[in-house]
Amino acid sequence: MNAVDIIVKKRDGGELSPAEIDFFIQGFTQGTIPDYQAAAWAMAVYFQGMSDAETTALTQAMAESGEQLDLHDSLPPGTVIVDKHSSGGVGDKTTLAVGPVVAACGLPVGKMSGRGLSFTGGTIDKLESITGWSPELSEAQFRRQLRAIGLVIAGQTADLAPADKALYALRDVTGTVPSLPLIASSIMSKKLAAGADAIVLDVKCGHGAFMETLKEANALAKLMVAIGTRAGRKVVALITQMEQPLGNAVGNALEVEEAIASLHGQGPADFQTLVEQVATEMLLLGTPQGTTLDADTAREQVRHAITSGAALAKFRAFVVAQGGDGALVDEPARLPHAPVQVEVPAAAAGVVQAVDSRAIGLAVVALGGGRHKKGDPIDYGVGVIVHAKVGDAVEAGTPLCTIHAASREAAHDVMEQIIGAYTVADGAREPLPIVYGRVAEAQG
Amino acid sequence: MNAVDIIVKKRDGGELSPAEIDFFIQGFTQGTIPDYQAAAWAMAVYFQGMSDAETTALTQAMAESGEQLDLHDSLPPGTVIVDKHSSGGVGDKTTLAVGPVVAACGLPVGKMSGRGLSFTGGTIDKLESITGWSPELSEAQFRRQLRAIGLVIAGQTADLAPADKALYALRDVTGTVPSLPLIASSIMSKKLAAGADAIVLDVKCGHGAFMETLKEANALAKLMVAIGTRAGRKVVALITQMEQPLGNAVGNALEVEEAIASLHGQGPADFQTLVEQVATEMLLLGTPQGTTLDADTAREQVRHAITSGAALAKFRAFVVAQGGDGALVDEPARLPHAPVQVEVPAAAAGVVQAVDSRAIGLAVVALGGGRHKKGDPIDYGVGVIVHAKVGDAVEAGTPLCTIHAASREAAHDVMEQIIGAYTVADGAREPLPIVYGRVAEAQG
Repeated sequence: MNAVDIIVKKRDGGELSPAEIDFFIQGFTQGTIPDYQAAAWAMAVYFQGMSDAETTALTQAMAESGEQLDLHDSLPPGTVIVDKHSSGGVGDKTTLAVGPVVAACGLPVGKMSGRGLSFTGGTIDKLESITGWSPELSEAQFRRQLRAIGLVIAGQTADLAPADKALYALRDVTGTVPSLPLIASSIMSKKLAAGADAIVLDVKCGHGAFMETLKEANALAKLMVAIGTRAGRKVVALITQMEQPLGNAVGNALEVEEAIASLHGQGPADFQTLVEQVATEMLLLGTPQGTTLDADTAREQVRHAITSGAALAKFRAFVVAQGGDGALVDEPARLPHAPVQVEVPAAAAGVVQAVDSRAIGLAVVALGGGRHKKGDPIDYGVGVIVHAKVGDAVEAGTPLCTIHAASREAAHDVMEQIIGAYTVADGAREPLPIVYGRVAEAQG
Repeated sequence: MNAVDIIVKKRDGGELSPAEIDFFIQGFTQGTIPDYQAAAWAMAVYFQGMSDAETTALTQAMAESGEQLDLHDSLPPGTVIVDKHSSGGVGDKTTLAVGPVVAACGLPVGKMSGRGLSFTGGTIDKLESITGWSPELSEAQFRRQLRAIGLVIAGQTADLAPADKALYALRDVTGTVPSLPLIASSIMSKKLAAGADAIVLDVKCGHGAFMETLKEANALAKLMVAIGTRAGRKVVALITQMEQPLGNAVGNALEVEEAIASLHGQGPADFQTLVEQVATEMLLLGTPQGTTLDADTAREQVRHAITSGAALAKFRAFVVAQGGDGALVDEPARLPHAPVQVEVPAAAAGVVQAVDSRAIGLAVVALGGGRHKKGDPIDYGVGVIVHAKVGDAVEAGTPLCTIHAASREAAHDVMEQIIGAYTVADGAREPLPIVYGRVAEAQG
């Protein structure tokens, strides 16, 4: 077996065997197959695609390229480990709310999350706006907290799927990012390496997401469900709307505040709906073998976790366990706030036709709330609160959104960009749904 | 301008501008664009192809990536510098005979040639079977000999087209060799860097050549003619047959002997025809501006150079100038000969239907007459003399060919391979033509 033959086979449209894929990925990880061969191979995959069997083999080879977590021995026997993944979007603070809700329902959630780059923020960055909170846990601390509280969100401690990390970095500089099998295997390999038995995928779709059309999002969702199923995991994918920012808040502390509101049952409608639906899917997948749970009961449990205050209490316990100031959960108004707030009024009456979430996300980066490049510092208080969303009627002067900035100058620097993100025109427009669809394994 | 954008543009089927191609090739040569980006780009070119304009820009960028020769100041004013290139085949000793013929007609020939690898031999290796002859000339020696004798064949002294060298090495290990624009630009860039005003291309076609079908060979020929024309050069391509070895001799000293025979007008018919046709095309392209030469007159000059002994004398002078033993040109029987000669007889009566030149070439490598890898030593005396060619009727026992080997054992080791190269069967078969076609710039 040699690398050139494998590249040529893929180039000519052949189906690679699991052994060939494993040889290639392990060789790439160990450095015996150089970057230039992996780059040519990735471009061949871009053009020729991969079968579900090949994509699954690639996912498993990458999952097996480094450490593989198994959290079962830190949890009660029979616990199903359920993970969630979002493909990323503007204002996406779902994990912050879903985690405590699900944990409050008795299903442990131990997640590794990342930091943000470009126009989407990262869960870890958002949580770091809570004074004292830290994502840095040893594996032993992670396991102890998971057992004690049932909720952990940490930075990536273990060396999970290093092949994926290396391949993703290479794809980024060789024009081979937008390949469905490479995207799907990248996401799923990390979930498999992190030891998930079941996964709820939140595939964002729209102008502010990686998948801009429903067709693309559907294809990615189906492929990831197929990979998971072939790899022996239970997987459900929700295809959700990312045409406009999720909820109202975009910016780190602002989003934590909104997540806390949703734990009070008072989040913006789209965000509240999404949190509850993702949590319900997680509970359904987390049902231990031999027991049953119907969707209505699961939804009931989720609602009860919120109305009873259990989810909020779980969030507070989680924050405190990771060194954070619990009082900020009780009084979120004391989270970091930007000194300057500037309203952006509608220029004329009309109905909001579109809110370009990518433009809003980039404006928040420009305000200092995100990173242009790895390692940039973050201003936790800045951001944008979106008041008017698609379908809302506005008068001239109605505030479309409020900019939270470090200075008046900084706010004015993004003003034009934010005005440009809004399309206000005559003509009624239906509000956008939050969930477009659901993809699950066909029941045999 | 950046490398990823250029890769993505090509990946998506866009046409790269000359500036983009130049940026990419110069960056690759200087190491600012790494191998992995060049590999991804080459694979994108494999799938998306290149327009004639792009291929020409690539050729020129590679030609300009290192030193560029200009031999005009070593030659009489108005001299047109004509080069020839063969895409390589088994028994291809054409340069050895064409060079002296053309030089004897008054058109100077200064060539840089290479060594052989795998199943095809190299011009330099063949000439080195002449005791004392050396390809190592300084540029000053090269120019002096070109002026004095009008014929030089040297190893590559200058650093010509280093981008091509690097890109070819990369293509070899990334599955991106068989791309028409990359093949054509590779060949043409070296010719442009070597300073040719006009080029006669001998595009081999058939089982023993890189282009196995007439369609492929035609496409490559047309593309190279188009590149040359766009780059301001005169180019003619002959598409020639490489279904069976060219002439009778395969092996270094055996081929020199056959080339000398052709300078006496006594080469095998196919080889003699090819030598005279290539030489005629070179004379036609070499006609100085303001003068005219018709094809019949050119052919007449070629014939006269041979019958008068001028071509043979030119070859002798060339050999002596580069340190070789001129007496070996007078008495080629004294060239190195293998101690053992074994005839391979036909097993049954019939007509030769095919002689697999690739198998014969590989047998000669196995005998020690070629290289498996760069730097392997060569046994100049060994080889195969092909007696029966396609269309020849043979009786049982008629010698099909003679193996020249270092030992009886070595001869027997390749016997099966050589018998397998021959297909003898009932049924008449036309002899194969040597020239399939000619491609030249359309006259405006």
